[in-house]
Amino acid sequence: MAQLRIALAQVNPTVGDLEGNRRTVVGAARRAAEKGAHLVVLPEMIVTGYPVEDLALRDSFVSASVRATRALAADLDAEGLGDLPVVVGFLSRREGPGERYGQPSGAPQNAVAVLLRGGVELTSAKHHLPNYGVFDEYRNFVPGDTLPVIRVRGVDVALAVCEDLWQDGGPVTAARAARVGLLVTLNGSPYERHKDDVRLELCSRRAREIGAALAYVNMVGGQDELVFEGDSLVVDSEGELVARAPQFEEDLLLVDLDPAAADGERGARDGDVIDGIRIVRRTLSADPVPAYEPRSNTVTPRPDPLSDTGEVYRALVVGLRDYAAKNGFASVVLGISGGIDSALVATIAVDALGSDRVHGVLLPGEHSSAHSVADAEDLAERQGFAARTVPITSAVEAFGQAAASAEAALTGLAAENLQARVRGTLLMALSNQEGHLVLATGNKSEAATGYSTLYGDSVGGFAPIKDCWKTLVWELSLWRNAEAERLGQTPPIPENSISKPPSAELSPDQTDADSLPDYALLDSVLAAYVGTDRGEAELVFAGYDPDLVRRVIRLVDRAEFKRRQSAPGTKISSRNLSRDRRVPITNRWTV
Amino acid sequence: MAQLRIALAQVNPTVGDLEGNRRTVVGAARRAAEKGAHLVVLPEMIVTGYPVEDLALRDSFVSASVRATRALAADLDAEGLGDLPVVVGFLSRREGPGERYGQPSGAPQNAVAVLLRGGVELTSAKHHLPNYGVFDEYRNFVPGDTLPVIRVRGVDVALAVCEDLWQDGGPVTAARAARVGLLVTLNGSPYERHKDDVRLELCSRRAREIGAALAYVNMVGGQDELVFEGDSLVVDSEGELVARAPQFEEDLLLVDLDPAAADGERGARDGDVIDGIRIVRRTLSADPVPAYEPRSNTVTPRPDPLSDTGEVYRALVVGLRDYAAKNGFASVVLGISGGIDSALVATIAVDALGSDRVHGVLLPGEHSSAHSVADAEDLAERQGFAARTVPITSAVEAFGQAAASAEAALTGLAAENLQARVRGTLLMALSNQEGHLVLATGNKSEAATGYSTLYGDSVGGFAPIKDCWKTLVWELSLWRNAEAERLGQTPPIPENSISKPPSAELSPDQTDADSLPDYALLDSVLAAYVGTDRGEAELVFAGYDPDLVRRVIRLVDRAEFKRRQSAPGTKISSRNLSRDRRVPITNRWTV
Repeated sequence: MAQLRIALAQVNPTVGDLEGNRRTVVGAARRAAEKGAHLVVLPEMIVTGYPVEDLALRDSFVSASVRATRALAADLDAEGLGDLPVVVGFLSRREGPGERYGQPSGAPQNAVAVLLRGGVELTSAKHHLPNYGVFDEYRNFVPGDTLPVIRVRGVDVALAVCEDLWQDGGPVTAARAARVGLLVTLNGSPYERHKDDVRLELCSRRAREIGAALAYVNMVGGQDELVFEGDSLVVDSEGELVARAPQFEEDLLLVDLDPAAADGERGARDGDVIDGIRIVRRTLSADPVPAYEPRSNTVTPRPDPLSDTGEVYRALVVGLRDYAAKNGFASVVLGISGGIDSALVATIAVDALGSDRVHGVLLPGEHSSAHSVADAEDLAERQGFAARTVPITSAVEAFGQAAASAEAALTGLAAENLQARVRGTLLMALSNQEGHLVLATGNKSEAATGYSTLYGDSVGGFAPIKDCWKTLVWELSLWRNAEAERLGQTPPIPENSISKPPSAELSPDQTDADSLPDYALLDSVLAAYVGTDRGEAELVFAGYDPDLVRRVIRLVDRAEFKRRQSAPGTKISSRNLSRDRRVPITNRWTV
Repeated sequence: MAQLRIALAQVNPTVGDLEGNRRTVVGAARRAAEKGAHLVVLPEMIVTGYPVEDLALRDSFVSASVRATRALAADLDAEGLGDLPVVVGFLSRREGPGERYGQPSGAPQNAVAVLLRGGVELTSAKHHLPNYGVFDEYRNFVPGDTLPVIRVRGVDVALAVCEDLWQDGGPVTAARAARVGLLVTLNGSPYERHKDDVRLELCSRRAREIGAALAYVNMVGGQDELVFEGDSLVVDSEGELVARAPQFEEDLLLVDLDPAAADGERGARDGDVIDGIRIVRRTLSADPVPAYEPRSNTVTPRPDPLSDTGEVYRALVVGLRDYAAKNGFASVVLGISGGIDSALVATIAVDALGSDRVHGVLLPGEHSSAHSVADAEDLAERQGFAARTVPITSAVEAFGQAAASAEAALTGLAAENLQARVRGTLLMALSNQEGHLVLATGNKSEAATGYSTLYGDSVGGFAPIKDCWKTLVWELSLWRNAEAERLGQTPPIPENSISKPPSAELSPDQTDADSLPDYALLDSVLAAYVGTDRGEAELVFAGYDPDLVRRVIRLVDRAEFKRRQSAPGTKISSRNLSRDRRVPITNRWTV
C-alpha cells in the first residue's frame, strides 16, 4: 500500500470564458497545494466550459483552447505550483484529417491534459462519446483511443472522461488490465432527479470491476439549460464510499487514500492495446510519499437533508442564478398574476438574486379577479421586492379597434391570446428600457399541452420552471413555505396562490379545468407519454381512460408547432443559423 | 448483358402520415407496372416520411411503421401488383437490446424492405449513419451490417441507403466484392445550392469503383426546414449519366438498362463478410427478361435552365408550399412594408399558393414614409392579393402611456422594438381570428447580426427567406422580375422596393446603414464566419478590415441569445420538451 492525498476541484466554469476558467483552475490548485495535495483533478472541459456544442467545429476556438491550456501550465508554474500535477479537461484536436465524410475538420477531441512543471506532460481524449439526451458528442468530437496511466508518488493512476465510465468496455477494461491503484474520471454530468444515487452505484461497481479506488470529479453550476450538481466522490477498491462533496456548491474535496502501490511487473505495459485502447504509461514521480497521518475524509451525507423536493428547488435556484450571471443580467422582471406559477418563479428569483434585483409587474386585465391583484401584492410584500401595476386594458382596446378597422373583430382565442401578448410586449418594453432579464413563468404541463400563448406568456429570456410539471410546481411551493416555517421565517408564497383553482383569467370565470384534465391525472399521463415515450396502447393497458389518453396525446403532438417559436425557414445552404448550428447561448468567446 | 427496366419513384411523403405515404407508394407502383417496369424503387424512409428525428425513439411509432410496411405489401398484392418487386425505405428495429448505454431502446433502424407477392421478402438497414449538419442519425438509429443482393430477372442488384454511398468502405466495398450488375440507393438528400453537381460526380465515381450501374432515387418536396430536390439519376458502370429526373417535381423516372447478367460463379457469396458487411443474396426471379426494344431514357438537362438563382427561388417556393400544406394551413398572412424582404416573401407566397390565399397587411407607424405605403400597395396590386391597412400608432401610444404610468418612459431601442412588437401582435391576432399562417419576412443577414426585434418582426410560423443573405434577397428579386419579363408578364416586385436603401423605419430617417456595414461587405464576412467557420485571424489574413471583422463577429456571437426565442429553462428530468427532444414539426402521427 502507498499513500496519496488527492484534491477534487468541484468548480463552476463558464463556456467560452477561457481567461476566467484559467483563473478558477489556478485558484483551486493553490488551495490544494496549501492543503498538501499530491494530485489535483478538475472537471471535464474545464478550460473551455462545458458543453461547447458546435463551438468545437470552429477551428479557431480549438486553437484558443489549446493555447489557453499551455498558458495555464505556465501560470501554475509561475505561481510556484509547477511540481504539483494538475489534471484538466480541455478541447483539443487529433492530428491528421477526419476519417469519415461529415466529420469535423481538425478532428476536435474532448481531451485531458496533465500539467506539470510549466508544460503539458501528457494528453489523451474521451473514448466513448455520448450522443443521446442533451449530448451531441459524436457530432462534435472524434474519439480518443488511449488510456494514460500516470505514476504519481509511486501510485499508478489511470485517467478517463465521464462517459468512459458509463459504457462497458474500452477504458474501463484497459484500466483493469493495467492494474492501476486509482482511476480518476473527469466529468460534466448534468443534474437529473435521483441521479446522485445512480452515480454512486455506478462508481462502486466500476471500482470493484477494476479492483482500484475511483475518484469522480464533477463540475457545478448552471450553463444554459443544464445544471451541474457537483456530488464529486471517491470510492475505495471495494466500492465503499470514502468521500463525497455537496451538491450545487463549489468545493475542494481533499481525500487521503491508501491505494495499491505501483509494481512494474504487474498489469499491461506501455503500448499494449486492450479492447482497442492503447495504454500510455508515464512516470511523474516514482517515489512514494513518506508515511503521514491521514486527515479524516469528508462524506457529505445523502439523502440530502433537503429532501428530493428541496434538491429540485436548489437546482432551479442555481440554474437561474448562473444563467443571469453568465449572460450579464444583474436583474430580472416578471409578471406576477397572483397565481402559483409566477409566485414560485418570483420566489426562486429572490432566492437566486436577492429581492432588490427582482422586479414584479402586475398586469391586470378585464378578466382579472380581485384576489389575483391581492395575492400578487401579498407575494411582493412578503418577499420585499418592488412591484408595479400596469393595466393592460387600454392597449388591448387599441388593438381591438385597429383589428376591427381591418374588419377582423377579435373573438374567442384571438381575444384571449391578445391579452397575453400585450402583457408580453409590456414586459419586453420594461426589459429593453431598464435592462432586466424577462422571466417566463410557464410550467411544463402548459408547454407540453400547448396551453399557453405564443409570444404572450411564453415571452422571456429564461423560464425557470419550464421543466416542472404543474403538480411539481405545487409541491415545490409547499416545500418552500414549509422550509421557511422550519427556519422561523415568513412563508414566501401566499397560501391563497397555492390553494385556489388555477386560471388564465383571459375570459369570464375561466379556469384551467375548462380546457385540461385534472392536473394530477394530466401530469401522470404526460410523464408517461413525454418522459418515458410510452404509446397510446401501453397507456390504455396501464389503466388510463382511452379517451383521456387520446386527448392528451393529441394536445402534445400538436403543441410542438407552438413551442418552435423561432420560425423555421427553408434551408438552402450548408449551414443555416438554427437547425444545423448548435451553439451554447452563453458565448463569451468572440474570436 | 441482360436487360432491365427500373422505375425510380421521385415522390413527396409527409412525416407521420403513414396512410397517405402508403397510397403514394401504391400509386407509383401502379404507374410503373403500366409502363412495364421490372423493379420499382422508392426513397429512403418513404413509409414514415423523412427525417423522423426523435420519433424513432418512440417504440409505438416504430411498431406502426413496421405494420404499415406489411400492410403496404398486402395493398400492392391486392392491386394486382404482387409480382413486381417494390423497394421501400421504412423505420424498423433490430431485434435484441441496444449495445451501448444511451442507445435507443428497441434499436430503431433506417431500413429497406423488398416487397413482393404480398409480403416482406427481405429487409436490411443503413450502415453509415450521418450525424452532422441537419442529421442526427447516430442519435436515432443503430447501424445495419448487411448488404442485400437481390436477383431480379437475372441481374444481381445491391441495395443501399443514402449515406452508405457518401462514406468510403462498408456497403460500397461489399457491393464491389459481390460483383453486382446494379447498385440501387434510396435517398433523402436535402437541397443545398450546387449539390446536384456534387451528387452526380459522387454517383459516377462510385459506379466506376464498383464496376456496376448505379441508380439513385431521391425524395422531393419540403419537410419543415428541409427541401428535397429530387434529381434522381442513373449512371452506367463507366459513370456516364444515362437518365436524370427534374428538380423540385414529382416524377417517375423509367430507365432501360443493360447491366451485366448475374453469374453465380463470380463475386462474394451469400454469408460472406466484406469490410464488416455480410452479403445476403436472394433470388426473386432468375430468368432474364426476353430481349425487348428499350425506350430512350430521359436526361433532364443541367445546369437547370432556371440558373442557380432560379433554382434557389424554386426551392423557396416548394419549401413554403409544403410547409403550409403539411401543417394544414390554407392561407398565409404577412406584413408588407414596401421594403424588399416582405416584397420577396409575398411573391414567393403567391407563387407557392396563389394570390387568393395570400393576405397582406400594411402596418404604417409614426416613422413610415409615404413611399413605403405606396410601394406596398403597388406590390399587392401587381400580384392581385388582398391588402388591408391597419395603422399601429394608437396601440403604440397606449403602450407608451401604460409604461409611463409605471415610470418607464420608452426611449431608444425600447421605443423601436415596441413598434415591431405591435405589428407582430396584430399579425398574430389576424392569424388567430382568420386561421392564416403568419409569414416572418426576416433574412439571414438580419438574423445573424441580431438586427431584428424578438417577438416583433421575427414573429411567424414560417420564415421563407430565413436562410438567404440580404444580397441574395436582392438577387432573387431581380431574377424573379427578369423571369416575368422573359415570359411577357408584369414584374411582380416594384422597382422602387429593389432600388431604395433598406430601412427599418422605426426612428426618424433611419436606414440599415446606420447600424450595419454595407450589405455586400457584411454578407461576405458573414458567409465566411457563419458559413465556413473561419475565425478572426483567417478573415483578417484574407484581407478584411480587422475592426470590421471584430464588429461583425461580436454581432453574430451575441445574436444567438435573441434567436433562441423559446426561452431555455433549467432541466431537471431525463427528458424535457426542447433541447433533449427533437421531433419534426409536422407530425400527423398521433398514436
